[in-house]
Amino acid sequence: MKEHIMFRMAGKEDLDAIVKMLADDVLGKVREQYTNPLPEGYLKAFQAIDADPNNELVVACRENDIIGVMQITFTPYLTHQGSWRATIEGVRTSSSVRGQGVGTQMINWAIERAKELGCSLVQLTTDKQRDDALRFYQKLGFNATHEGMKIKL
Amino acid sequence: MKEHIMFRMAGKEDLDAIVKMLADDVLGKVREQYTNPLPEGYLKAFQAIDADPNNELVVACRENDIIGVMQITFTPYLTHQGSWRATIEGVRTSSSVRGQGVGTQMINWAIERAKELGCSLVQLTTDKQRDDALRFYQKLGFNATHEGMKIKL
Repeated sequence: MKEHIMFRMAGKEDLDAIVKMLADDVLGKVREQYTNPLPEGYLKAFQAIDADPNNELVVACRENDIIGVMQITFTPYLTHQGSWRATIEGVRTSSSVRGQGVGTQMINWAIERAKELGCSLVQLTTDKQRDDALRFYQKLGFNATHEGMKIKL
Repeated sequence: MKEHIMFRMAGKEDLDAIVKMLADDVLGKVREQYTNPLPEGYLKAFQAIDADPNNELVVACRENDIIGVMQITFTPYLTHQGSWRATIEGVRTSSSVRGQGVGTQMINWAIERAKELGCSLVQLTTDKQRDDALRFYQKLGFNATHEGMKIKL
């Protein structure tokens, strides 16, 4: 039987569960800080995301548990004769559900959401250190056509 | 003498010059449409960008000429303990000024703008078909740490 997962916009009360997932990650464990209380930066960032109509912080839930999180940013561009793109970022699933296809359901949900809002493209970048992620996204139909370049300020 | 370039937010009256640049590009020539009047999609996209406080369409000008355009998107994220990122997209310079360092001045301006607004990261993706772009951005300090993946809807 296919696992029933519910998707909804995250609320402030979900922040603890979300940061726990962000910190429980091979790269996140060195750069996140899951403490009680949470560092104030998380709340400020949540409020900024929540206030922006072009940003959606989405949680995947099973019964009362939050088992996944991702952020989708919708951006209007002049290119391609004027178009909207959806950018998926910060995709994490709870370590308790890994290997159960939750990530696949999340990305497919994001693609449907992007279609619903009239986007012509869904994009994301994945760290080259994440060996499995490239194959995961390729299986879902993404093409690695671009170099993802970053500069820290 | 270093060329004096002025940067400002684009207005509706700049749209013709901007689309002309987007269409005069190795990839843009097949996907853009520079006609008079312009396809309505460009105006709609301009209005959406203009209305979004987290998106800036910036033009580079020399005297009365528009010689470059780029879009900067500012996005709040929970990751890195709550942070803002700037994403640069749709960077184009007029073919009349190529090789004069205009692109370098544009990207450096975008980096300064991102610092001014408190971003911790500047990011962009560049099509792997654009041979020179990777080296151009590496010279400016960007690292190609990520795969840029896309799916057309």
